[in-house]
Amino acid sequence: MKCIFAGERIGYDGSQIGSLWAYTKFEVQDDNIICFRGSCAIPLKHMIDVEDKIHNEKIESPDMLHFIVEHFDMPSLKVAYARQRLLACIAGEVFKDMGYSVSRKGDDLFYNNGKLSISIASTSPVSCKIHFGINVRCDEYMSLEKMGIKDVDAVQKQIGQRYAAEYEDMERDIRKSRPLEAYQ
Amino acid sequence: MKCIFAGERIGYDGSQIGSLWAYTKFEVQDDNIICFRGSCAIPLKHMIDVEDKIHNEKIESPDMLHFIVEHFDMPSLKVAYARQRLLACIAGEVFKDMGYSVSRKGDDLFYNNGKLSISIASTSPVSCKIHFGINVRCDEYMSLEKMGIKDVDAVQKQIGQRYAAEYEDMERDIRKSRPLEAYQ
Amino acid sequence: MKCIFAGERIGYDGSQIGSLWAYTKFEVQDDNIICFRGSCAIPLKHMIDVEDKIHNEKIESPDMLHFIVEHFDMPSLKVAYARQRLLACIAGEVFKDMGYSVSRKGDDLFYNNGKLSISIASTSPVSCKIHFGINVRCDEYMSLEKMGIKDVDAVQKQIGQRYAAEYEDMERDIRKSRPLEAYQ
Amino acid sequence: MKCIFAGERIGYDGSQIGSLWAYTKFEVQDDNIICFRGSCAIPLKHMIDVEDKIHNEKIESPDMLHFIVEHFDMPSLKVAYARQRLLACIAGEVFKDMGYSVSRKGDDLFYNNGKLSISIASTSPVSCKIHFGINVRCDEYMSLEKMGIKDVDAVQKQIGQRYAAEYEDMERDIRKSRPLEAYQ
Amino acid sequence: MKCIFAGERIGYDGSQIGSLWAYTKFEVQDDNIICFRGSCAIPLKHMIDVEDKIHNEKIESPDMLHFIVEHFDMPSLKVAYARQRLLACIAGEVFKDMGYSVSRKGDDLFYNNGKLSISIASTSPVSCKIHFGINVRCDEYMSLEKMGIKDVDAVQKQIGQRYAAEYEDMERDIRKSRPLEAYQ
Amino acid sequence: MKCIFAGERIGYDGSQIGSLWAYTKFEVQDDNIICFRGSCAIPLKHMIDVEDKIHNEKIESPDMLHFIVEHFDMPSLKVAYARQRLLACIAGEVFKDMGYSVSRKGDDLFYNNGKLSISIASTSPVSCKIHFGINVRCDEYMSLEKMGIKDVDAVQKQIGQRYAAEYEDMERDIRKSRPLEAYQ
Repeated sequence: MKCIFAGERIGYDGSQIGSLWAYTKFEVQDDNIICFRGSCAIPLKHMIDVEDKIHNEKIESPDMLHFIVEHFDMPSLKVAYARQRLLACIAGEVFKDMGYSVSRKGDDLFYNNGKLSISIASTSPVSCKIHFGINVRCDEYMSLEKMGIKDVDAVQKQIGQRYAAEYEDMERDIRKSRPLEAYQ
Repeated sequence: MKCIFAGERIGYDGSQIGSLWAYTKFEVQDDNIICFRGSCAIPLKHMIDVEDKIHNEKIESPDMLHFIVEHFDMPSLKVAYARQRLLACIAGEVFKDMGYSVSRKGDDLFYNNGKLSISIASTSPVSCKIHFGINVRCDEYMSLEKMGIKDVDAVQKQIGQRYAAEYEDMERDIRKSRPLEAYQ
Repeated sequence: MKCIFAGERIGYDGSQIGSLWAYTKFEVQDDNIICFRGSCAIPLKHMIDVEDKIHNEKIESPDMLHFIVEHFDMPSLKVAYARQRLLACIAGEVFKDMGYSVSRKGDDLFYNNGKLSISIASTSPVSCKIHFGINVRCDEYMSLEKMGIKDVDAVQKQIGQRYAAEYEDMERDIRKSRPLEAYQ
Repeated sequence: MKCIFAGERIGYDGSQIGSLWAYTKFEVQDDNIICFRGSCAIPLKHMIDVEDKIHNEKIESPDMLHFIVEHFDMPSLKVAYARQRLLACIAGEVFKDMGYSVSRKGDDLFYNNGKLSISIASTSPVSCKIHFGINVRCDEYMSLEKMGIKDVDAVQKQIGQRYAAEYEDMERDIRKSRPLEAYQ
Repeated sequence: MKCIFAGERIGYDGSQIGSLWAYTKFEVQDDNIICFRGSCAIPLKHMIDVEDKIHNEKIESPDMLHFIVEHFDMPSLKVAYARQRLLACIAGEVFKDMGYSVSRKGDDLFYNNGKLSISIASTSPVSCKIHFGINVRCDEYMSLEKMGIKDVDAVQKQIGQRYAAEYEDMERDIRKSRPLEAYQ
Repeated sequence: MKCIFAGERIGYDGSQIGSLWAYTKFEVQDDNIICFRGSCAIPLKHMIDVEDKIHNEKIESPDMLHFIVEHFDMPSLKVAYARQRLLACIAGEVFKDMGYSVSRKGDDLFYNNGKLSISIASTSPVSCKIHFGINVRCDEYMSLEKMGIKDVDAVQKQIGQRYAAEYEDMERDIRKSRPLEAYQ
């Protein structure tokens, strides 16, 4: 699995959740996590969470850290959501290791009861994808800025690299586990 | 998903990782997480991790908290291991919320560099299972006792209930996510 | 699995076969069967059965009982069609229990050789869906009216509730069946 | 899918539920339903239903019609149980067409409140299997004899052939159904 | 699996890779390989290979042999690509048996270092599809004409029939293989 | 995917087809193809092909090239057999490139009408495996010795490396293919 840091700023508009965005943009032919920084503004037609859509939610932020994960091994919502939660946990662990007690509820991170992140996961017939975004600056919600975190790149690097390492570690564990039988 | 606290002490000998142990013991016909306390001694024939088997590892503890998860929705190592990591993360979060900075590496928890837990996941043709064990007392490794945690039941209850709640939360999220298309 | 009776009249135009219609309309986050009454007129673009499409079939009725089933556990035509047939069988059993000898051929019900129902099943990457419609009134085909059935609500209630109960019953059976080995 | 009538009497002892029994016995290399008549006595080690096993049920009959279904397309309990229910429905329809009002509850058939049949379904890593048995003679439970049905072969033939025809009909329907999109 | 020779000329424009094209055109309700001859010109919107799309490749030929494979058993890129490679191998074997040493690299065939074929595979939620095209005439690339092969129909017939036979042979082998256990 | 050449001689007795043999022997935690040379003698209990078992086939050779493939991505006979055929094709291509016209029929290779190889594929709940064996010396059947091939290592190396490269190439192609829609 490749962990790619985009370098340039990219505004997240929801189109990037489409399958093969990473290939189109970076020609990566591995499972991947693409990490980038940029604004967030998702028009209705790109909203994957129907809850947001029917409630006409405005998902916007002037400056976010974005993580876009793509797995091709198994196009299933079951595995997509388990991995999404794992990514949220990993982000929480990164903050803990930096000295910030961030709490997680489902796929959301909170700091001092302020919502710090947004996330969605879904699948096409060819790949599962996850978007996870952390506010860098934000008036309405919690943000890295409000938390006093200045080294945004460190957060980005830790989350991206740890998720990729976690996935590879799971793939190795899968290859040393005997099948189960029924309890006798 | 049912969260069941066994009440009685049960010695974990590896047989409980077999599919349908929970049904045989508790007649539960849901996905389930069974939580119990007891010793741990796994003979070679019940070892699922071939690494332990070929290195002739001794997996033993006089007193552990055990969590046995069983899911019937998709017998796949991919989803089994993603959920196992999630269970390890949740356990870490429970300790954090109790004021203990426990670190996680893959499916292992550490406190003050001492290994606190063991875990395995695998699948039969009918169900995925996870075993996650936390030392209550242990000479060789880290334990709740060494950490100074006396309310073992609270740890058990928090981990069991949060995992079950997390699973149900994911199942709800799965039912409001639109399928993806290819990036244009 | 939730069984929901819509209450209001809803005209079936084929859009309701789309994934997440039930969530959009009723905010249900379970597998579900939505039961409602209303007209039926399916424009070409919403036809899922390509046979109807290429033969330019007119699928219309002024008044039907509609059942829309959605399962998220396994997006597969194999399981979708097995469940569709089961729904057709259950409808047939409901009529038998009401004293009407309705015969089934595939996914169609017949009474006195008159076609009483229409049905389709398919899958998106996120959910399997089934539409099953029974004519309440209809000039061209058989209908509840022609059969002399006045208690349309009873038919609706029985079919909806029995299908949901059947699914839950299967889910329980799945959780007490040992895996098979090869014949020796 | 092949429908094979064994001709000879075969005592069902539970071993026939093993994957590839049909190949071993009849060298059939298709999905198949094998129909035969014979006694039924299942020792504990061959019991697939753990409920029977823990309650130490005696599953016995001196003379039964047996149907053993094997599908290789998708080793999944989800599809195995949907097809098992369908087989039970088909058996019920056959009785209805012969003029007997048999009721179905899950995978069981009843006549005059007497239990007429037994059934189980499960999967190995290579195939799904279903056993469905109908008492021909039986002291304790309902039987074809008690129902007054003398043409046992006709029952056998109808159930076997209709199930095979139903499967082929579903396979054809699968090949004319467009994929679904999300509801807009 | 049906092998159908279209008879008439059909220009391949990429639309034929869509699921259920074969049903729409030939009303076939089996897995199928459709063999036809005609030009090839694929507009951007029908390009499945994103590599071609982003590099703005022109995929054109005045006269090609086309093979369109559709399988409904398992909508998975994993199985789609394994079968695509197998089709390319079979085509190579047909040429070998006709006395031409054609080499294969992935899904491409080469003769005298000239590229002779194009191919793509993908999946929708309902079926896997493969397109494999062999130049009959072509200025830029290798072609049957340049190889001196005049009996184009024989090439078409051999490739189509052998692929269908291979698939059926695999399906038979699947139905006589015992499941594996873990190495002891 | 790792291609490992065992170095030492290993007698193939059928136990090596068990899941996780490669991990147990070589501690490899990737999908893998293990290549080795040694005798072949498969006792009945290790026979996976039930056809051989019921016909009491003797599968023996004093000296063979063995290839054992293991994939963990999808425990399915469908994908296992497609990859097995591909391995047989690749072996055939290797011989062609060495100047020997070997023909393939299903999973068997023939030279001058003499059977040169044996093969089987199957799956456990955790991995798919393939065994492919080529006679180096053999009285009864065709062999590399009879063909006059002395550089047995070159054959081994080419087949092992090409299969691994083919798999990686397919995995890359999977990651640049857009999902399909229905034909309009």
